[in-house]
Amino acid sequence: MTVETKSLEIQSKRENEIIDITEKVADNVKNSRIKNGIITIFVSGSTGALTTIEFEPGLLHDFPEMLSRLAPSDIDYAHEQMWHDGNGRSHVKASLVGPSLTIPFTNQSLTLGTWQQIVFIELDTRNRTRKLVLQIIGE
Amino acid sequence: MTVETKSLEIQSKRENEIIDITEKVADNVKNSRIKNGIITIFVSGSTGALTTIEFEPGLLHDFPEMLSRLAPSDIDYAHEQMWHDGNGRSHVKASLVGPSLTIPFTNQSLTLGTWQQIVFIELDTRNRTRKLVLQIIGE
Amino acid sequence: MTVETKSLEIQSKRENEIIDITEKVADNVKNSRIKNGIITIFVSGSTGALTTIEFEPGLLHDFPEMLSRLAPSDIDYAHEQMWHDGNGRSHVKASLVGPSLTIPFTNQSLTLGTWQQIVFIELDTRNRTRKLVLQIIGE
Repeated sequence: MTVETKSLEIQSKRENEIIDITEKVADNVKNSRIKNGIITIFVSGSTGALTTIEFEPGLLHDFPEMLSRLAPSDIDYAHEQMWHDGNGRSHVKASLVGPSLTIPFTNQSLTLGTWQQIVFIELDTRNRTRKLVLQIIGE
Repeated sequence: MTVETKSLEIQSKRENEIIDITEKVADNVKNSRIKNGIITIFVSGSTGALTTIEFEPGLLHDFPEMLSRLAPSDIDYAHEQMWHDGNGRSHVKASLVGPSLTIPFTNQSLTLGTWQQIVFIELDTRNRTRKLVLQIIGE
Repeated sequence: MTVETKSLEIQSKRENEIIDITEKVADNVKNSRIKNGIITIFVSGSTGALTTIEFEPGLLHDFPEMLSRLAPSDIDYAHEQMWHDGNGRSHVKASLVGPSLTIPFTNQSLTLGTWQQIVFIELDTRNRTRKLVLQIIGE
């Protein structure tokens, strides 16, 4: 068994940007010495999140829109009253979607569906430089 | 350390069907050569999801109902305007609940609670044949 | 490769309590024989959940508040009509946030962000004694 740690730096441009990281994750799996196993992708930070989605323009609008119904920008957040950084909604959305995603691979190929991409979602209210950890485990 | 890859085929009947896969997952763990470790269950597809729930008729109604409050069928989805396949709500709900679930096991037994079952949730608007990947890792 | 199974007992005090378990999880990683890998934290139970959040008083209010907009206490749950235990909302919220969290570590140190803590969320309507499983895998 082997563990390989990789990382991925992402530059987001704006709140609610959804960034397709499938190819970069797949490359890291292909370039590892591990043939079969799992990869855990992790956001080190509390206002970004990971999931899979069909990466097409419609859903890049619909998914953040759904999150905004849950955590609108025009309500009061206790986080705001404490810290005045205007991103209370960012935190609650990120904690709900989650910071971690684990995907199996076989023969160094991710087991994704045809219309299923791995995405990072920028939920903070401004652009950010993000570091993702990719932990590959298997044999 | 060993990795064993299994798969599970599911035939769903309708939107919002919740299917108990606990026994099949447990059997795959029991029939593996791995005694202690984790199993990652993964939906290859973008309109199905995995979680755990107390599998009883009431919650099989309540959980999809909650998701429908988040992503109602009677609002506009940009996905619909692009693709006209009527399942914009399915995609956003599946991305929120998530495609991946990792569960520890010890002595080839899943560490679930007594009233906690592993479920696949069909969020697409029609029946589907689903393939789940089960990646078992441990020693 | 090695697998180490640890557990964590938590005593929650009330519904919507968010408990910071970062230090205890980090200690278990540090005290293991595994240098690099992943830790999967798992709630054995169907009315508690795990995620990461910036652990500060504002968000400890905002996050449960958002979940209560999704699953209010003043609507009908089919679970209630069957079981009369008053915690239909607890179940649907726990299944949405999720029972499992996997975090990479390197050099026995969790790859969390500076303002990112690992938390257990008590979603049941009363205090509970909770058992979390910590499965550490790596080399």
